[in-house]
Amino acid sequence: MANATNINAWDDMANRSPVVGFIDQCLRGAGQVIFQNNPLTGLFFLAGIWWGSIVAGQIAVAVGATIALIIATYTAVLLDVDEPSLKQGLFGFNGILVGAAVPSFIGTDWTMWLLLIIGAAVSTIVMLAISNIMKTWGVPALTFPFVLTTWFLMLSAYAFHRLPIAGLSPPALPQAANVTDLHATVGNYLEYLFKGPAQVFLINNAISGLLVVIGLFINSRAAAIFALVGSAVGIIIALIFGGSPSSIANGLYGFSPVLTAVALGCVFYAPSWRVTLYALLGTIFTVIVQAALDTAMTPIGIPTFTAPFVFATWLFLLPKAKLKPHPHEEIKNGIFTKHPVAQDLPPT
Amino acid sequence: MANATNINAWDDMANRSPVVGFIDQCLRGAGQVIFQNNPLTGLFFLAGIWWGSIVAGQIAVAVGATIALIIATYTAVLLDVDEPSLKQGLFGFNGILVGAAVPSFIGTDWTMWLLLIIGAAVSTIVMLAISNIMKTWGVPALTFPFVLTTWFLMLSAYAFHRLPIAGLSPPALPQAANVTDLHATVGNYLEYLFKGPAQVFLINNAISGLLVVIGLFINSRAAAIFALVGSAVGIIIALIFGGSPSSIANGLYGFSPVLTAVALGCVFYAPSWRVTLYALLGTIFTVIVQAALDTAMTPIGIPTFTAPFVFATWLFLLPKAKLKPHPHEEIKNGIFTKHPVAQDLPPT
Amino acid sequence: MANATNINAWDDMANRSPVVGFIDQCLRGAGQVIFQNNPLTGLFFLAGIWWGSIVAGQIAVAVGATIALIIATYTAVLLDVDEPSLKQGLFGFNGILVGAAVPSFIGTDWTMWLLLIIGAAVSTIVMLAISNIMKTWGVPALTFPFVLTTWFLMLSAYAFHRLPIAGLSPPALPQAANVTDLHATVGNYLEYLFKGPAQVFLINNAISGLLVVIGLFINSRAAAIFALVGSAVGIIIALIFGGSPSSIANGLYGFSPVLTAVALGCVFYAPSWRVTLYALLGTIFTVIVQAALDTAMTPIGIPTFTAPFVFATWLFLLPKAKLKPHPHEEIKNGIFTKHPVAQDLPPT
Repeated sequence: MANATNINAWDDMANRSPVVGFIDQCLRGAGQVIFQNNPLTGLFFLAGIWWGSIVAGQIAVAVGATIALIIATYTAVLLDVDEPSLKQGLFGFNGILVGAAVPSFIGTDWTMWLLLIIGAAVSTIVMLAISNIMKTWGVPALTFPFVLTTWFLMLSAYAFHRLPIAGLSPPALPQAANVTDLHATVGNYLEYLFKGPAQVFLINNAISGLLVVIGLFINSRAAAIFALVGSAVGIIIALIFGGSPSSIANGLYGFSPVLTAVALGCVFYAPSWRVTLYALLGTIFTVIVQAALDTAMTPIGIPTFTAPFVFATWLFLLPKAKLKPHPHEEIKNGIFTKHPVAQDLPPT
Repeated sequence: MANATNINAWDDMANRSPVVGFIDQCLRGAGQVIFQNNPLTGLFFLAGIWWGSIVAGQIAVAVGATIALIIATYTAVLLDVDEPSLKQGLFGFNGILVGAAVPSFIGTDWTMWLLLIIGAAVSTIVMLAISNIMKTWGVPALTFPFVLTTWFLMLSAYAFHRLPIAGLSPPALPQAANVTDLHATVGNYLEYLFKGPAQVFLINNAISGLLVVIGLFINSRAAAIFALVGSAVGIIIALIFGGSPSSIANGLYGFSPVLTAVALGCVFYAPSWRVTLYALLGTIFTVIVQAALDTAMTPIGIPTFTAPFVFATWLFLLPKAKLKPHPHEEIKNGIFTKHPVAQDLPPT
Repeated sequence: MANATNINAWDDMANRSPVVGFIDQCLRGAGQVIFQNNPLTGLFFLAGIWWGSIVAGQIAVAVGATIALIIATYTAVLLDVDEPSLKQGLFGFNGILVGAAVPSFIGTDWTMWLLLIIGAAVSTIVMLAISNIMKTWGVPALTFPFVLTTWFLMLSAYAFHRLPIAGLSPPALPQAANVTDLHATVGNYLEYLFKGPAQVFLINNAISGLLVVIGLFINSRAAAIFALVGSAVGIIIALIFGGSPSSIANGLYGFSPVLTAVALGCVFYAPSWRVTLYALLGTIFTVIVQAALDTAMTPIGIPTFTAPFVFATWLFLLPKAKLKPHPHEEIKNGIFTKHPVAQDLPPT
């Protein structure tokens, strides 16, 4: 983790001033979307969001992301959460994504902002809930709190007439893909490559992607490289199996593989050749899960968000060294056991 | 927990006579639908079900609920479950709901009764299963055993031609809500307010709701108040976001918030102002989850039952004081760890 | 577990030669699909697959199953998994099913084979992941790794135009069953009875089913009997509730009950009359879950695979002797607890 003297000066200020400290937590929260505990990285990610949303004429996305980041982080403060986790920005990265997603898919009305505020606050509670579950197996919550919360928000918009649907694909029955292959120039592919990291933040803009990659590079060269490799794997596997050209061109096959590649390749496992091959398989599988969830979500008209990354990465993090699967023989303490061994009680 | 001398006399009889003891367990089972370990409360809840189903000309609902309550409780006896839990009625509250749901949505035929009996017995096994899972995080099963079991029963009716579908909405693709706002008098709103607690038991009748609230009041004033507040929150949030007027008028935005408000406000957390605010946020979120699951269930044509309450309440109960989320760094005992620490084994 | 002297000779060879040892692991992997740790049983199961797929002119199914069995087992070797588990064949039974399923539903193209190879390798990782989760409650992963992996593979085929859909029912909205009752001779019913065990391996052939039952009988008479009872229960319950005649005739109501009956009746509980009655209820419930999941999967156009068995059997294995469900009272270490007890940490 690169630390310049400027960073040290900032850290000092963050420790002394509660306001700077809170800003620091928010910026780190932005950085933690791609696992980087670094406020400058977070600033680059925010810059990527603002650039992309201004260019697209959707400034509500950047405003929403920023507000939600602040609300989610402040909710954690109010809930008196674990201080070190708060300082690492672990209560902001789901909120910022909730805040980017809501205005991307629901029309700008005051009810949308109300929904966004509720969702941002709830994302922190869901983060605590999912973290409690997943730590049972020594595994992080990843961005599942964002995914789960935002799925609820999006689905509710179909039932609430004051939440105008603005960017969701209409619910439909899945049909066998009937598309042609993608034909693109090298320049195009370079653009698609950088759209992957941008789409992590729901931004369809290659320059935003470049800002994201620079933000990564500042804190971890390995993370920047794995992010680009992940985006490339997304494009290549989608080309091999024949994914929709427009999805490939918009970086929609790239954002989940970006996250999987960084998570498996250099964050949650110590980097090595074996780990890299394992991360590669996980990244390839993420592309298949992306296509699968795209299909599964079609009848209910909501996006997958980063669920393909979450599900694939959980599956690739849960195996433990020398794990003994339960054998196919009599279970212990079954309901008909005469003299059961003392039951495990809820944590007291 | 209010205790009159009559109650003491009843408790004595329940301890002495196995028959009265079993009736006591069944009545407490009814009471536990809204977390009340009180046979008189359970009697009022049952009275609410009988009143509502007779008035609606659907006596099979009350008969089904009563039979299923007995079968579910007796299945627990046969399975030789934990005695104190049995005496608290923890094996009846899912069964009674299965028994109210099946005749509400499937036509009265002998095959319906067979399905109801199987479902009631299975609900007790599912209660044990879900309880075993959720106690890992010190959290109750809530009514998820009812929800899961009944979802299976309802979905099976589409595939089985001798289970005539009588009250399920036909499967459809979700569409953006296109409804007008609700216009109602104060009297109307008072009626809707009491329909919320009644719909916990799948009864669309305000007088049944009044019986339910009286039953709560007998055992816990706080529970009665939180139930009405929950129902009011359901109506208000649905009005703000523009939910379907007929759903609001039938108490369908109220029943899950009733349960969330009681659960979070005065059962699973010690009441306080902070807890009340937290419970309020949880109750508001429950209304959003209700709308969301209404959308998600549309293509498969089944009701949400109390799933919005269950999911929202679980998410608001799972956070623990000073919980440390897994940080974004190397996991322990990962599959490539050379010398893993001793693995946790299945409980022996 | 029957052991002939030939078996002992084979075991000696398997211990001495790495190649024979690996073949032994693969054959046991085939056997473990129905919980039999016996290479000869596995050989009979493979013979059933080959016979059925040759007769149906779908040799790719048998080739796929065999290749995937080898790849899944070898992936476990590469991941340096727990040796005793590997030797019992616990890393092959999901792979063989992935390999039978993919060519059954996706057209034979090189991209299908690539998908199959990825899926087979991933099935081993998913087995480790699900095993880690489920051992928390002393319960096996069952065939859920196969189900989950293959659901992803099948769903992805709708989005990828180079994965031609060949055998999946087109996505549709569920409709109330409108079928006549089945009329069949005793000879027909005997055929359907043996199609149940064959359909465990996605094979629609009674002779294959006979080979499967013989394979079971070699290792465990009880397993052979419970398998046939399970298949019979599937047919009878489907007849009572009025399931689709073609599904009954093709063994599609039988394969999950076969697995539930064997699992609950004589593998995971010590056989007794109480256990047999419990297994019977679980097997009946499996048929209802089969019908339910058939409905739930209709809008996304994928088969249930063995999910009905997995879900029903998990629910019937999770209850523990003298389990205390969390009572409806204040939870421990709730988020507003002032002085929380030491938190459980991730396994270190």
